[in-house]
Amino acid sequence: MSVTAPLGFRAAGVTAGLKSSGRPDLALVVNDGPDHVVAGVFTSNRVVAAPVVWSRTVVGDGVARAVVLNSGGANACTGPEGFGDTHRTAEHVGEVLGVSAGDVVVCSTGLIGERLDMPALLGGVDAAAAALGADGGEAAATAIMTTDTVTKQVLVQRPLGPAGATSTDDGISWIVGGMAKGAGMLAPGLATMLCVLTTDAVVTAEDADAALRAATAVTLDRVDSDGCMSTNDTVVLLASGASGVPVGAEELTEAVTAACASLARQLVADAEGATHDIAVTVRGATNEDAAVAVARAVTRSNLFKAAVFGNDPNWGRVLAAVGTVPADVAPFEADAVDVAINGVTVCRGGGVGEDRSRVDLAAAREVRVEVDLHAGAAEATVWTNDLTHDYVHENSAYST
Amino acid sequence: MSVTAPLGFRAAGVTAGLKSSGRPDLALVVNDGPDHVVAGVFTSNRVVAAPVVWSRTVVGDGVARAVVLNSGGANACTGPEGFGDTHRTAEHVGEVLGVSAGDVVVCSTGLIGERLDMPALLGGVDAAAAALGADGGEAAATAIMTTDTVTKQVLVQRPLGPAGATSTDDGISWIVGGMAKGAGMLAPGLATMLCVLTTDAVVTAEDADAALRAATAVTLDRVDSDGCMSTNDTVVLLASGASGVPVGAEELTEAVTAACASLARQLVADAEGATHDIAVTVRGATNEDAAVAVARAVTRSNLFKAAVFGNDPNWGRVLAAVGTVPADVAPFEADAVDVAINGVTVCRGGGVGEDRSRVDLAAAREVRVEVDLHAGAAEATVWTNDLTHDYVHENSAYST
Repeated sequence: MSVTAPLGFRAAGVTAGLKSSGRPDLALVVNDGPDHVVAGVFTSNRVVAAPVVWSRTVVGDGVARAVVLNSGGANACTGPEGFGDTHRTAEHVGEVLGVSAGDVVVCSTGLIGERLDMPALLGGVDAAAAALGADGGEAAATAIMTTDTVTKQVLVQRPLGPAGATSTDDGISWIVGGMAKGAGMLAPGLATMLCVLTTDAVVTAEDADAALRAATAVTLDRVDSDGCMSTNDTVVLLASGASGVPVGAEELTEAVTAACASLARQLVADAEGATHDIAVTVRGATNEDAAVAVARAVTRSNLFKAAVFGNDPNWGRVLAAVGTVPADVAPFEADAVDVAINGVTVCRGGGVGEDRSRVDLAAAREVRVEVDLHAGAAEATVWTNDLTHDYVHENSAYST
Repeated sequence: MSVTAPLGFRAAGVTAGLKSSGRPDLALVVNDGPDHVVAGVFTSNRVVAAPVVWSRTVVGDGVARAVVLNSGGANACTGPEGFGDTHRTAEHVGEVLGVSAGDVVVCSTGLIGERLDMPALLGGVDAAAAALGADGGEAAATAIMTTDTVTKQVLVQRPLGPAGATSTDDGISWIVGGMAKGAGMLAPGLATMLCVLTTDAVVTAEDADAALRAATAVTLDRVDSDGCMSTNDTVVLLASGASGVPVGAEELTEAVTAACASLARQLVADAEGATHDIAVTVRGATNEDAAVAVARAVTRSNLFKAAVFGNDPNWGRVLAAVGTVPADVAPFEADAVDVAINGVTVCRGGGVGEDRSRVDLAAAREVRVEVDLHAGAAEATVWTNDLTHDYVHENSAYST
C-alpha cells in the first residue's frame, strides 16, 4: 500500500511536536528516481496558504525530488513571514537530502492564521530524513492526519502484459500508490486534502500533468462533504520511472483515476461526524457540467443532509435543492424530474412517487440518491455526507 | 401591529385541522378597499409549489381582494391535483367573500410532496371568514407559524405632515403593517417565508410593485440562515387606499423597506436552533453585487457557522470562504483583506491581526463580522445564524 509501494520511493512519518496531542505530524516522501517527474493540482481558493504558493512554483517545471508535509498548522494567512517559513522548510529538506530547495514540494494542514513552530518542524525534518525507508508509507500516511480517524492509502497494480517489460519478479509491471488526508473542509475545487501519489512508471511530465488533472476532476473534485473549500489543498503525483516500464497517457490516466477514486471514497467514509455517505447521481442532463451542478446543489443542502442523518428519505428537500440551479446552467423541466433513494423512486415527474416508507436508510451507511432530469444523456456523481450532531460538535468545540 | 393595523383590512386565524398538533393553521387577510392594489414577489426556485403558480397569476393584474394562507402542508410537488386544490381553495374563498377567485392570493407552507386535507382546509376558510375582524392580525400571524416559536409582525407609521391630509384622528397619516413566517429553509431569493404586508396608503399598482421589489431585494433577500431555498416563498403587499393619503413611490419604498427589514431581522432571530444571529457586512467592494456575493459565501460556510456556535472567532474560516468567490464576480487581493469580529480586527491584510482572544462571542446573541476588501466603495450586509446541534436536531428528527 501507500506511497512507497512503487519502486524508487522512500518515506517516513515522525513526531516533530507541532501537534499538542503529541501525535505524528511530519511526513517526508522522497523520489529516488531515476526520473523525478512531478505534477500537481491545488486549491482553487483565492486565499491560498504559503505552501501552496511555493509548491505551485516547484511543480511548474515538472521536476521534484521530495514532498514534505506537516499537520498541526496550515501556515495559511500568515503573510510574508509564513511564506518565509515554507521557503526555509524547503531549503532545510534540500540540504538534508542534497537536492535543490526548488525541487521540494511543501504541504501543510491544520489551523489557519498561526505561524508554525519552525525549530520543531526543522527538527522533525532531520528525524524524518533519518527514518526514510521503503517501508515508510504507512508512517507517512499517519503523520498527515488531522481530524482523520484512519489513514487513507491506495495501491493500484498493473500486471505484466503478454509481452510486458518489467523490473520486478512478481508479475507486476508498474504501480500507482498514494496517501491522503482530509475529513473536514471537504469540498472542491479539490476536496480539502493533502494527497501524494507515486508511480514507478516511466512517464513524461506532460502526461503526468494531464493524467492528474483528468483524474482529480472526476474523483477528488466530486467529493463535497461540507461545501467548504480549503486554502491548502494539494494533490501531487511523483513518478520515479524505477519500473523501467514506459506508460502512455491513457493507461496512466486510468490508473491514477482509480487511485484517486479510492482515496476520494476513503475521505468520504471518514468525514467528520458523518453517519452516512451519500452518492448523488444525476442522470438525463444535457451535459456533464449540468449534471455536476445539479448534484452539487443537492450535496450542499443542509436540510437534505440533516434529513439523511435522521434516516428520512425527504425527496422534497432534494427537489427544492435541484430547483435552485439556474436554467441556463442545467436545462430541465421541474415536472419531469424523478428522484430515487436507494432504488425506490419516491418522486416521479416532480410529484409523489412510490411510498417513501419503503426506503430504509438506517440499514446501511451508504445512501444512493438518483435524480433523473429527463433532459439529455449526460450523468455525474458527487459524494457527500449527512449533517450530524458530531459534525457540529467537531467544528464548534475545536479550532481547526 | 400586524396586517390589520392599516385601515381597510380584516383578518382571522383559525384551526382548520391541517396540523397534527392541533395548532392554528389557516389565516385569511381581506382588503376591504376602497382600492384593491396588490404586488407580489415569489421564490426564484424552479421547483415551485402550486400556490405560487396560482398566485403569480393573481397578482399579475395588480388587483387582489384577499390572501388565504395555510400552514400544515406546502402543496409543493403535488402535480396537477395539487394545483386543483389551490384553485379550489381560491374559488371557495371567493364564494364566501363574494369576490372573484382570480383575486384571491393563496399561500401554503409545510411538508413538500403531500396533498392537503381539502375538507379540513375549506372548513377552515368558512371559520376564518366568520371570524374576520379588524383585530384579527395577531391570530392570522399565529396561524401561519410552522417551526417558528414566535409570531413576526411589524408596524410602520407615517405621521401627519405639517399640511398632511388624513383619515384618522391620531396624527397618523398612513401605515404599513405586516406579518411573516419562516424559521428554516431560510435563504434567498427570498428567505423562505410567507409574508403579507398591508398599507392604507393610496398607491398605484406600479408603485406597489416597484416598492416591494426594491424593499425585498435589500432585506428579505439578504437573510440566509441555512442556504436552502424554498419552493413556496411568497411576499405580498396589499394596498387599500383607506387612509385617503396618496403616497409616492419613494415614500412607499422607504416604509415598505423598513417593514421588510424588521420582519427579516425577526426571522433571523427565530431561526431553527440558532444561538447567534450573524451580520456579515462586506465593505470596500467594487460594487454592491460583489459585496453581496462575498457576504453570501461567508454566510454559507458551515465551518464558520459551527465555529460561531462554539463562540470561536475563527477568522481563518471567514477568509477561506471569502476566497471561494470568483475573481470576475468580486475583484480583490487576498492579502489586502481585513476581518473584524465584534469590532476586533482579528485579520489584517490577509494575515494575523489583533489577538482573537479579545473577541467575546459568548456575551451576546448578535455577532458582527466585517470584511473589508479594500477594492472599492460598495458595501452590503447579509444575515445568517450559527450552525447548531438544535438545527441538526430539528431538521433530522422531523420531516418538514
